[in-house]
Amino acid sequence: MKKIIALGILALSIAGTASAQVKPEDQIKYRQAGYSFMAWNMGKIKANLDGEYNAQQVQAAANAIAAIAGSGMGALYGPGTDKDIGNRKTRVKPEFFQNMEDVGKIATNFNAAAASLAKAAAEGDKAAVQKAFGETGGSCKACHDKYRAD
Amino acid sequence: MKKIIALGILALSIAGTASAQVKPEDQIKYRQAGYSFMAWNMGKIKANLDGEYNAQQVQAAANAIAAIAGSGMGALYGPGTDKDIGNRKTRVKPEFFQNMEDVGKIATNFNAAAASLAKAAAEGDKAAVQKAFGETGGSCKACHDKYRAD
Repeated sequence: MKKIIALGILALSIAGTASAQVKPEDQIKYRQAGYSFMAWNMGKIKANLDGEYNAQQVQAAANAIAAIAGSGMGALYGPGTDKDIGNRKTRVKPEFFQNMEDVGKIATNFNAAAASLAKAAAEGDKAAVQKAFGETGGSCKACHDKYRAD
Repeated sequence: MKKIIALGILALSIAGTASAQVKPEDQIKYRQAGYSFMAWNMGKIKANLDGEYNAQQVQAAANAIAAIAGSGMGALYGPGTDKDIGNRKTRVKPEFFQNMEDVGKIATNFNAAAASLAKAAAEGDKAAVQKAFGETGGSCKACHDKYRAD
């Protein structure tokens, strides 16, 4: 888990060299794709917690969330990605780019919660999944409330 | 790896119970998000193979690809997702839905290649990453060539 957290901080403090060539409009596209795919997997976990619990499906979903969270998405907030580019709309607020230390803390919390979720899911511990799911959702919301426009 | 392959087959043979409630237009959105996010991570791995090799970045990218591949995306090809829905366009060909056995084989190959890629990346073995990266890209292309419109 320490490794994943470190990776999160790294990703937010430096825009990875290799991904620096990604065009700003594609950075917005890719970050939205990551959040969208995580949302699908969060929805699956919620459905499993609310209804019949399929441990294998929950584990696969949690792994996807944790791996996306740990993939260095900070590199997708490069220069020029703070506003719409043509048809590519973004809801990120200017405040996001002005509070990178706070954003980094939220990202670290998010990575930690997602890693806990994946761990609990791998162990098939439904109660721990429920707890980590709440923490993961809470860290999503923490960022949305502060840094995403309605 | 066996587990990941089994999961892939499972995902394609049954549309997971919990995700059955996802609206067809959202199924298209989520599957496109998954492919898009994988494409970003494939691009990062390629940049690392062609230039300076950052083992940590490659590992994070490969983990994201393998976890997305293993997340049961077969459930995102449910009834009604074979054509555009309003503004939500899809390039999937009708042949995809008529050849589910072949699609299942390609998906299994893809999952296996992505798992090999993640394993090689975790071991920091650049030559093995190069090989598995080629196989992963090849299995993407196998599906695109047959089942995706230009």
